[in-house]
Amino acid sequence: MKKILFIAIIGLTAYTGVAQNKDSIIIKKIIDETMINGMAYENLRILCKQVGARLSGSPQDKKAVALTAKMMRSIGADTVYLQQCMVPHWVRGEKEKGQIISPGGKRYLLNLCALGNSEGTGPQGITAPVIEINRMDQLRQGGTKNIKGKIVFFNFPMNPTYIRTFTAYGESGVSRTRGPSLAAKYGAVGAMVRSLASNLDDFPHTGVTVYNDSFPKIPAVTISTNDAEYLSKQLKNVKKADAYFRTTCKMLPDIPGYNVVGEIRGTKFPDEIITVGGHLDSWDLAEGAQDDGAGVVQSMEVLRSIKACGIQPKRTIRAVLFANEENGGRGADKYLEEAKTRKERHIFALESDAGGFSPRGFRLEMSAEKQDKIMQWKDLFEPYGLFETGAGGSGSDVGPLREIGTALAGLNTDSQRYFDVHHAATDVFGVVSKRELHLGAGVIAALIYLVSEYGLTSSL
Amino acid sequence: MKKILFIAIIGLTAYTGVAQNKDSIIIKKIIDETMINGMAYENLRILCKQVGARLSGSPQDKKAVALTAKMMRSIGADTVYLQQCMVPHWVRGEKEKGQIISPGGKRYLLNLCALGNSEGTGPQGITAPVIEINRMDQLRQGGTKNIKGKIVFFNFPMNPTYIRTFTAYGESGVSRTRGPSLAAKYGAVGAMVRSLASNLDDFPHTGVTVYNDSFPKIPAVTISTNDAEYLSKQLKNVKKADAYFRTTCKMLPDIPGYNVVGEIRGTKFPDEIITVGGHLDSWDLAEGAQDDGAGVVQSMEVLRSIKACGIQPKRTIRAVLFANEENGGRGADKYLEEAKTRKERHIFALESDAGGFSPRGFRLEMSAEKQDKIMQWKDLFEPYGLFETGAGGSGSDVGPLREIGTALAGLNTDSQRYFDVHHAATDVFGVVSKRELHLGAGVIAALIYLVSEYGLTSSL
Repeated sequence: MKKILFIAIIGLTAYTGVAQNKDSIIIKKIIDETMINGMAYENLRILCKQVGARLSGSPQDKKAVALTAKMMRSIGADTVYLQQCMVPHWVRGEKEKGQIISPGGKRYLLNLCALGNSEGTGPQGITAPVIEINRMDQLRQGGTKNIKGKIVFFNFPMNPTYIRTFTAYGESGVSRTRGPSLAAKYGAVGAMVRSLASNLDDFPHTGVTVYNDSFPKIPAVTISTNDAEYLSKQLKNVKKADAYFRTTCKMLPDIPGYNVVGEIRGTKFPDEIITVGGHLDSWDLAEGAQDDGAGVVQSMEVLRSIKACGIQPKRTIRAVLFANEENGGRGADKYLEEAKTRKERHIFALESDAGGFSPRGFRLEMSAEKQDKIMQWKDLFEPYGLFETGAGGSGSDVGPLREIGTALAGLNTDSQRYFDVHHAATDVFGVVSKRELHLGAGVIAALIYLVSEYGLTSSL
Repeated sequence: MKKILFIAIIGLTAYTGVAQNKDSIIIKKIIDETMINGMAYENLRILCKQVGARLSGSPQDKKAVALTAKMMRSIGADTVYLQQCMVPHWVRGEKEKGQIISPGGKRYLLNLCALGNSEGTGPQGITAPVIEINRMDQLRQGGTKNIKGKIVFFNFPMNPTYIRTFTAYGESGVSRTRGPSLAAKYGAVGAMVRSLASNLDDFPHTGVTVYNDSFPKIPAVTISTNDAEYLSKQLKNVKKADAYFRTTCKMLPDIPGYNVVGEIRGTKFPDEIITVGGHLDSWDLAEGAQDDGAGVVQSMEVLRSIKACGIQPKRTIRAVLFANEENGGRGADKYLEEAKTRKERHIFALESDAGGFSPRGFRLEMSAEKQDKIMQWKDLFEPYGLFETGAGGSGSDVGPLREIGTALAGLNTDSQRYFDVHHAATDVFGVVSKRELHLGAGVIAALIYLVSEYGLTSSL
């Protein structure tokens, strides 16, 4: 602890009062601009209500591209362009059905949906005995003897004691992403995954599952947390039950998708590029308000607020609305590919994909030296409630840029409510707070401004 | 800045590693208990859905007293009792009506309601020219000449640039609390106050107005923020307009109300009392979920979680559900009176009345020495997102105890969403997040535990 304090004192001494004061005034101007005149909330309303769900490859995805490209122009980006890439085209098909059939024929209808990228059951659906597991090693322990011919029920509740809910999501998430293929390894005919949600309700939370090509691609669904609680209790009571579900989802051939890019060209170092982005695609069940409409409109607001404050940034600032984060990551790959082809110099990239909640800090994925530089600005952000800045993973859309040495960052938010709505029909405009969304946009703009002014390599 | 760091280092040195580690384990146990098994959210559901609005003097207020006294017993308080006090009995009467009548007779219906404790217009209502003011000194400048016979429209938007919304509420709040009487001083016949809300919507946000006995008690209403925006624009366009409103509210004679008190008696210093509380009454328009059902159920959860963890506190811990915070403060006065009568020794009192949002820290209203003692525990709370602990006003219910030298505190929350729903029909159970509510309860319990273990005067 003493060591950290010592470093903090050194930092404060080096970063002298005059610059600090000038920066704090400009930062206040930027954040005030967003809190008073910010457009993020109204843009989010339009995105959610005029487009709504926008899964990669869907007509709504295209509509969202056209709409946000128009927004980029209207907020005054110098240049607006699209980057085309081929994206997976998964379709859900008909409304899914499913139930639990207990001994004696008692039926319980499930709130469920197919997992993203999963294969359908065919028109007849599948029925099989259901077996619950709570840890991955139970699959190996059960082996083919116990798993073969069954539907595996992955009941991995998110641990409520993790204060940062993303930690719980990361830990339980394996049940959805890798669970179905691991079950298939032991002969399972289907997978039924407890929704990755913090709360108990009746909404299934979809999300991608990743098939391992070594094993059969078995149909996979997610059931609501309330239904998972029921099923687990029922299996304890009656020992055995059958599950039935029917999905008609399928993967079609790849189809074009687009990153939407808007840029304010730097006045002094135009070739040094700073990226701020979120992803434009969303799951198909909801409006994708928190995931990640919030990041999309915040990224555009960064450009708007900096222009509105009359700031001409020294370095080029780009807002990027990435394609296909949810079930492919092709937009992020494309962005790196273009950067390499054009030999662009990307000095910093920040991602907002943790919802439009109150900002709490930044995760820094960069050299210790660059982290130190950002940490010298720490005090500037404390008046806005940001105390949780430090080393951490940035995000999946800016992540590929680490290959070309870009300093990466992600916005930390107050994550308590995120997984109540994440990937579910409840992730709608109405759950977003204007003040929280705008405060997030404001502090991102402030950090982007500082990097555009000072860079990350030169001394202050 | 250097001085503060120096003090922090001294603190850390004095408060050695062994105690810190033991305390952090117990605190994690308490907070985990609340995050896993906490009853606050379910108790809030019951309070909001079985009782709902519970204005002082109303039948629902009595029902809430009976319900929460029962809850106190069921969570295992050693002793549960009521403290009777006489509370104001204001009734709203019939649904209010109002409109703006522009030149030419164009009518615009208003979303309005009477302010708490205000007098009614009588059955005919009042109609008068409306004059907008945006600063209190405009009343004096306008004088009787401009104000007499008019309805004064107080248009004091909450300043969106204050990151802590309570600051904006405090600044604009004068329009509601003192505005009507100040307008009466210059001959106004009515007051129409812009709702104290952060957002733009159609809900009037009520709250108390305080009549000055030197001036006539003129009828006073609040209109929604959307209507305030309309009215202000309309007055700019048409220069003059009439307002009409009708209210039948009135103040009846005082009536009994009750503080609900539940206690766990201390094992070593039973005479040293620690209070944790919120207020049980709410405005009549909503369920009073965030204001202050949250504080009520959190206070009870403090007792429950400490008992559930098998902790036998050294000092006596009391959960107090105060009567009549909203329009009188009589419960708080009664609590002090009883403390003095019984010669109780109140060492610490903490109030939760900032909503059940993510906790951010504690406001400390106590001697510098006692603040230092609490600040030594600061690191214990950072893993839970609490970085904003420091000097500050405690709260109106524990406030009277300052007369007898009690160290006071209040819970700081993330306040971005509070004034979207505060005192309006939108303050319902559905806007409360279980995780946020429980995290708040957990950190309060942790601080109460530390004070019960170490006191605030002896050295660690």
